[in-house]
Amino acid sequence: MAQQLADRRDIDFVIWEQLDGEKFIKEGGYAEFNRKTCDLIINEARSLAIKEILPSLAESDEIGVKFDSGTVTVPESFVPLRKLILEGEWQNLMVPPEMGGQGAPPFVSAAATEYFMAANWPLFTYASLGCSTAGMIQHHGTEEQKKKYIPNLVSGKWGGTMLLTEPQAGTDVGAIETSAVKNPDGTYSLTGNKIFITNGEQNLTENIIHPVLARIEGHDPGTKGISIFIVPKFMVNDDGSLGERNDIVCTGTEEKMGIHASATCSMSLGSKGKCVGFLLGEEKQGMKIMFEMMNEARMATGLQAFAYASAAYLIAVNYARERIQSRDIMDYKNPAAPGVPIIKHPDVRRNLLWMKSIVDGMRSFFYYTGVAGTKAEIVEDETERRRNSGLFELLTPLIKEYLSFRGHEVCVQAMQVLGGSGYIKEYLVEQYTRDCKITTIYEGCSGVQAMDLLGRKLPMGGGKVFGSFMDEIKKTVEAAKQIDATSAMAQQMEKVANRMAEVAMHLGVTAMEGKLREAFAHSLPFLHAMGDVIMAWMLLWRAAVAAPKIEDAKKSDAAFYQGQVKTADFFIHTALYETMGAFDAIQATCTAALDIPDEGFGGL
Amino acid sequence: MAQQLADRRDIDFVIWEQLDGEKFIKEGGYAEFNRKTCDLIINEARSLAIKEILPSLAESDEIGVKFDSGTVTVPESFVPLRKLILEGEWQNLMVPPEMGGQGAPPFVSAAATEYFMAANWPLFTYASLGCSTAGMIQHHGTEEQKKKYIPNLVSGKWGGTMLLTEPQAGTDVGAIETSAVKNPDGTYSLTGNKIFITNGEQNLTENIIHPVLARIEGHDPGTKGISIFIVPKFMVNDDGSLGERNDIVCTGTEEKMGIHASATCSMSLGSKGKCVGFLLGEEKQGMKIMFEMMNEARMATGLQAFAYASAAYLIAVNYARERIQSRDIMDYKNPAAPGVPIIKHPDVRRNLLWMKSIVDGMRSFFYYTGVAGTKAEIVEDETERRRNSGLFELLTPLIKEYLSFRGHEVCVQAMQVLGGSGYIKEYLVEQYTRDCKITTIYEGCSGVQAMDLLGRKLPMGGGKVFGSFMDEIKKTVEAAKQIDATSAMAQQMEKVANRMAEVAMHLGVTAMEGKLREAFAHSLPFLHAMGDVIMAWMLLWRAAVAAPKIEDAKKSDAAFYQGQVKTADFFIHTALYETMGAFDAIQATCTAALDIPDEGFGGL
Repeated sequence: MAQQLADRRDIDFVIWEQLDGEKFIKEGGYAEFNRKTCDLIINEARSLAIKEILPSLAESDEIGVKFDSGTVTVPESFVPLRKLILEGEWQNLMVPPEMGGQGAPPFVSAAATEYFMAANWPLFTYASLGCSTAGMIQHHGTEEQKKKYIPNLVSGKWGGTMLLTEPQAGTDVGAIETSAVKNPDGTYSLTGNKIFITNGEQNLTENIIHPVLARIEGHDPGTKGISIFIVPKFMVNDDGSLGERNDIVCTGTEEKMGIHASATCSMSLGSKGKCVGFLLGEEKQGMKIMFEMMNEARMATGLQAFAYASAAYLIAVNYARERIQSRDIMDYKNPAAPGVPIIKHPDVRRNLLWMKSIVDGMRSFFYYTGVAGTKAEIVEDETERRRNSGLFELLTPLIKEYLSFRGHEVCVQAMQVLGGSGYIKEYLVEQYTRDCKITTIYEGCSGVQAMDLLGRKLPMGGGKVFGSFMDEIKKTVEAAKQIDATSAMAQQMEKVANRMAEVAMHLGVTAMEGKLREAFAHSLPFLHAMGDVIMAWMLLWRAAVAAPKIEDAKKSDAAFYQGQVKTADFFIHTALYETMGAFDAIQATCTAALDIPDEGFGGL
Repeated sequence: MAQQLADRRDIDFVIWEQLDGEKFIKEGGYAEFNRKTCDLIINEARSLAIKEILPSLAESDEIGVKFDSGTVTVPESFVPLRKLILEGEWQNLMVPPEMGGQGAPPFVSAAATEYFMAANWPLFTYASLGCSTAGMIQHHGTEEQKKKYIPNLVSGKWGGTMLLTEPQAGTDVGAIETSAVKNPDGTYSLTGNKIFITNGEQNLTENIIHPVLARIEGHDPGTKGISIFIVPKFMVNDDGSLGERNDIVCTGTEEKMGIHASATCSMSLGSKGKCVGFLLGEEKQGMKIMFEMMNEARMATGLQAFAYASAAYLIAVNYARERIQSRDIMDYKNPAAPGVPIIKHPDVRRNLLWMKSIVDGMRSFFYYTGVAGTKAEIVEDETERRRNSGLFELLTPLIKEYLSFRGHEVCVQAMQVLGGSGYIKEYLVEQYTRDCKITTIYEGCSGVQAMDLLGRKLPMGGGKVFGSFMDEIKKTVEAAKQIDATSAMAQQMEKVANRMAEVAMHLGVTAMEGKLREAFAHSLPFLHAMGDVIMAWMLLWRAAVAAPKIEDAKKSDAAFYQGQVKTADFFIHTALYETMGAFDAIQATCTAALDIPDEGFGGL
């Protein structure tokens, strides 16, 4: 069974048919990246990911990382594979040229990254995380800092991280205790302990540049008093050479459910009183600067989950095409009937089509949101720029939470298609399932995304942003109503979207009336239901693009387009009914979870 | 944080308040097991499980089993721990005295087993699987076979297994190729390869007795031609001593997502032409005999999943009581407000109460079904015996699939409450999640249970069995309507139960009209929705028992009873709305999953 990671045909479909690729490329100033160039890039990424990187995935899970007195050793295969990634400059594909990156359109980078994440996310992250650190320095650093750090971070010569979490400060970032004291030379001495630091230590790069959240002594408690510092593992001299080892050390790595080859480090800063940091931006700007990076990290986490789901689905569907088991259900009375591939069994088809509907919907949704984010930066018209910025902000928590939540569910269902073979390590689905589980947890867990959506995003612009999101759905609905094959779906979609708006309003009013606990007890179910509506919207959009093409298409193309229509049909006429039920539940605003006494939860 | 595995108070509540424990004990002929004795048994099981066995769980997951040229070595800690289990005869608690067991009431055995499964399922299975093999021999073996094998299987001196699956025959048991040829002495020579055999080889017992499905040469293809054989690892002489090593060898063990300490073996039979088997029962009775055992195995699998979920929930709720993070939501404007335990946050409460509703509902449901199964054997009145037998048959696929499906979801949500700590091995929730995943797969995967429900169980007695199930729900609804605290829930419950009956009828009619593919494309969603209704029914029952007790109860008891009422309130007024949506989707009977061309699934 040939291993695939993402459906190349579907990536094309999303980019070129739905997102108006050429137009976007021209208007975005990416003229040199015409369709031919982009195809070349995506095909090369695919080939590198499948042929070179993917074979390392299972083995690197088995080996994991080794911690020994301050050092972390990653699987050996990562050394040559990382070189291949850096040689192709895959890690900085989307990074602007002024920072030394390739400056490719974000959706092309997303397509390439989909492959790399599914092929070996820990490996790709060792290569690419420096670009994220470089981005923070680009936006907030001094000219000297930019010159000193950015080139080596973007080229992948050095690694990057983000030191945020502490044992007592997870979701509650404001509770951090790492402190900074200003030295006479303008540097700061940092003291503290950080945990759950991805790539905090590794043996791949000659230096690591750590952005660190800390509180300057005397500054306010809570988030307002937090600043951000650059803490290099090795100090960097003015000529670019490496100086002294800084007093920041890895004290251990976590044993985890998955992503075993990714080093999740505990870091001690200043245990010898000699941890030197350099302020990034202004004092007390730590949360603001970190949050700019966090939006990127949340998008990347959604992409990660989606990439696992896409790869797991393809394993399942191809297994279902090859695995012969039991007779066709219509032959149930005939014991002499031949066995059939399990893709012929109704329950397997249902499961596969559910997975496909989620994977297809997620791919379109991710690209759509990414394009809104890009437009928010490049569009000339200010109103339109703001509108896109609003959409991007509104949809980010949905990308993060919905994709990670449903992405994991897809991985679980892929295991189910393989039966006993899904539970063993021979196929990759069990690993994808384990690896994927982190995505609903890090970079802000499910509940945090739901609070962000209900507390910050839905009320943006007094509800105008949400209104503009509804307008976008209506555009698709109106177009789909004009097409025979999609008009019934469009009617149903409209009904559910309007119901969503009603329920959003109801939750908003509940919160504004001061019933915060009541509203937020239903925030995550609302986020998930809104995500379902977005899936339906995206699938309807795809179906409306595909349906008119079926008649004149050649056979293999026709099957693809028919697949689009049937996928939308399936999701809108099965899953969306449950979504309607979920909206009913939210509207009812049951308070039992608030009213039950703490002791009533039992286990005492 | 003290580790718990099951809520002792809740076990009592289920046994003594809901299942009419004393009455059942008397009428079932378990008179010597009065409440005091049963309490003693359950408390001892709890103590052994938590104090002695549980500490081995994480380590044995880490160590796993080692395969080396035919031998399988289990974690060392299992040797003394298995002795403790056998000394207490915990493995045969429910086994009838005539087989050498303790003859305890099944629900007491279930309560004890809950603890052992959550404490270390692989360990407990090494000790107890022989009883299952003994049961098959008791029901179908010759007197000589009984005498030869049963005592050592029930005492745990020897191990048992079940050799069913082959590479080409998983769900499709009829496709097995293992063959048997009758020898002049009445024994059979077996040849074949089996996979996924739990405990197929291990270093704990001096002998292993394998029941093996095989086809006698010349017998029909498919399930009708299958017979079952006893194949001992070491032949047993007439005086009970062990003879020659039989030609059945382990050729490898699987690397799996979880249950690492459980040996999942590939077995080769007759590679030297010398595998001797003894026919069990008559020729061609293999499937019938195996299925009697399979019903037990499906119940046990549901219990396993439920035990994990119960333990994972308790970790989550106790963590939520201790973990301080962020301010109370009503203090969101006051940065000086103190941090609160996360159990105070609305979204965490919602999640916890969802978990509790599933765990409580599953516990009641499991015991209810188990009691029906017991009544099907012990009740004097034939009509009542048949009625209970029907209920047990109807509910078995729901126990197997719904408990394993939702049980896994509960484990996943428990991880979510712990955040980053949920993903690491410091707490057991990630292990429970991995271990639990097997339960939707083995002993008949999800789709198989759904086919069993729709194809065999719903139509039983022309729908009479389902009718009797509806009557049982109505009894609870009527009782709950009479109580102020539960009457509104009862109304809602009645509505949803009636809707379930309508949709069951609709699916039945669809299938009878020959639209088998259409009906079976919705069989698993129906099973899950029916399971939700059963959860609501069980929670309503509990609430109706608890509500009248609140007023006069002392404080800690009152919180427990209030918890029951709020749990039912929560599930019926949130989750059940989605269930209604699921019924709408099934009623709509969308055929997209059947209509989509195979190529339309993509990935080609």
